[in-house]
This record gives sequence, C-alpha cells and structure tokens, in this order.
Amino acid sequence: MSIEAHIVDPKFTTLFRDTFGMNEQEFEMLLSHFELKKIPKKEFYLKPAKVCRHKAYVNKGCLRNYVIDELGHERILFFPMEDWWVADIDSYYSGEVGTNFIQAIEDCELLEISKENFQMLEKKIPKLGQWYAVKMTRRATTANKRFEELKTMSPKDRYLDLLKNKPEIFQRIPLQYIASYLNIEPQSLSRLRKQISGH
Amino acid sequence: MSIEAHIVDPKFTTLFRDTFGMNEQEFEMLLSHFELKKIPKKEFYLKPAKVCRHKAYVNKGCLRNYVIDELGHERILFFPMEDWWVADIDSYYSGEVGTNFIQAIEDCELLEISKENFQMLEKKIPKLGQWYAVKMTRRATTANKRFEELKTMSPKDRYLDLLKNKPEIFQRIPLQYIASYLNIEPQSLSRLRKQISGH
Repeated sequence: MSIEAHIVDPKFTTLFRDTFGMNEQEFEMLLSHFELKKIPKKEFYLKPAKVCRHKAYVNKGCLRNYVIDELGHERILFFPMEDWWVADIDSYYSGEVGTNFIQAIEDCELLEISKENFQMLEKKIPKLGQWYAVKMTRRATTANKRFEELKTMSPKDRYLDLLKNKPEIFQRIPLQYIASYLNIEPQSLSRLRKQISGH
Repeated sequence: MSIEAHIVDPKFTTLFRDTFGMNEQEFEMLLSHFELKKIPKKEFYLKPAKVCRHKAYVNKGCLRNYVIDELGHERILFFPMEDWWVADIDSYYSGEVGTNFIQAIEDCELLEISKENFQMLEKKIPKLGQWYAVKMTRRATTANKRFEELKTMSPKDRYLDLLKNKPEIFQRIPLQYIASYLNIEPQSLSRLRKQISGH
C-alpha cells in the first residue's frame, strides 16, 4: 500500500498543501521521502545511546517522551500525539548521543524522514524551510512555557491547567504517567483529584 | 553617532556578514532598522502587562530574565549576555500580554528591532530568514535542555554543570540571582559552595 493511503490524519496534507501552499509536485516529492513506521503499544520508537538521525510526524496514536533522572527514575517531558513531530531534538542537531526514550502508549503510526533527506528537500522546496522556521518557533515557545510552569506554578495549578487546556490527555494516558509529566508523586495526584472533585 | 560606531561586539557583524553571507547592501539595510537602547544597571528593558513587539540583540552587558511565581517570588529563567537575543518570546508570537521581566544587571547596550520591521526584512533578505530558523532551533534546544535539567538533575549537579559550562556567570552575577536561576535557596547554594570547596 502506498504511504498516501495510510495518512488517516488529513492535517499532514493540510499543513503542507494548504497552510504552506506547496503544489502537487512539491508535495509528492516531499511525501516520497517519508517512511511509514508502525509502533505497537508499549514498544519504543527511540532509545538513547545512539545519535538521532530522523524525525517523525505522528499520524496516529500517542506516545510518551521521557528521560531518566540521576536516581534512575523516569521523568516524562511530553506526550506527543497526532500532528506532533518526535525526535531527540538535542541529539538530532548536536550529532551527540541522545538521552530521550520515546515509547508508544497506544498503537502508533509515524511518518519518518531522515535528516539528510529533510535537508536536501529544504533546498529544493523553499516552502518547507518556511514551515520549519514556524515550527521551530512554536517548539521554542512550548519548551519555554513548560520550563516557566515548572518554575512558577504549584503542582495543583499545573494539574488544573492541564485539565483545562488538554483534557484529552486524561482520556488517553494512565494517571501515573500524567503524574510524572506534572512532576507530582502519583499519590499526591490522586489526593489532589479527590480533593478537587469533592470526595 | 551612527549605530555602526556603537557595535563593540563584532559578533553581530560576523553573524550576518560572514556566517550568513549577507552582502554590504543587505547588511546596511538590516542595520538601519535597529535602534540602540542603553539600559543602565538595575533599570528594566521589559516589564509584563503589555504585548512584546520588539526583540533586541545584547551588544554589551548582562541582564536577568525573570517571572513571578504564584507566591510572588522572582524566578530567574535566563541571564542574557553578549550575543544573546532578548524578548518575551511567548508574548512576541502570541500577541498576548507578556509575563517576563528583563532587568539590566550591568550597564547594557541593546540593538532593538520591531516585529514589523523584522518581518518586512525577512521578506527582502532571505538570508535573514535562514539565520532565524537556525536561531529558533537553538532556542528550542536550549529551552528543552533547561527543562530536562530541572526535571532530572539534583541542585548540586545543576550547580556543578553551570560552574563547568558557564564559569563567567559567577564573575558577573550576584549569588542570590544564581540561586534563583538554579532553583535553589540562597542558603543552600552557599552551603553547597562551602561543601564543594572543602571549607
């Protein structure tokens, strides 16, 4: 089956065809350099100890992106889901060995492209470069925002903020993972939820 | 005096002329849209409660970029110094009211450009857009790294990491600010320093 037939989430097409105005030929060329990767639930898309040389668009499913802290505990940074891009961003740019684990929480479909192919396409399709600058700006503001939240908000307010702005996370992701994402002990999160719901 | 005469740090010129290969005409056009701002020590370049519509290159000096947490405490995010760019990045892109304070720790010289002028120049000088994509990528990886550090490293190791990788910070910045940057109580930082130096 061709890769086109797999794109269940029309956002990928909308993104490049409509928002960035690629013509059919450009979009076909772009798409032909992506490879479909199916990652069954609980399997890993990425592990540390090697250099990250690809990035991937999340076409379907949800993952957890985590690192291991000094005491050996998992610390979840992000929950990439549909319309996100995943990679060990530091390793991808520095060329150094990565530190990030990316594991499927649901059965996932990723569209993956190599760094070499992406760079080659950026030269051939200027609109791709324009899109990437916008995306990197968003990524910078998102990482900044998470960093600010962790420095300024109480655990309770980080929880309420997540509940308000990303309610879908609570439908799709186990609570112990959400606790790690929020930097809260799982027991504290349970207590907080009981307290807020009034039980 | 012209703005050129003020550029004491040759990195600004090197950046655009050499690294991104702008010709003389392009560089002159770029430079003519920057405005020199002198910020005396302890004064503010930016305060919250309005939308951030400019960004500025740090030509000389050192600042602290902080936010106020829920309990009213200052929380330092970054120490911008020579060759950094400063702005309330979320506000700059979202158009919403900002949350960041940026205050001079030393007498500072900033080269400021408005968002409108920058966007206009990006269209006229494609190399500016190329530079900006690289810069935003670096900004994303930096913010990501700080976020990861805060989630995974002990206060002691964050301190040792800073001492190793940015020793100049300890020459230029008061210790109570460094404590806030590291998310450590000032007393704990003093204790840590004594412990490490063996006294």
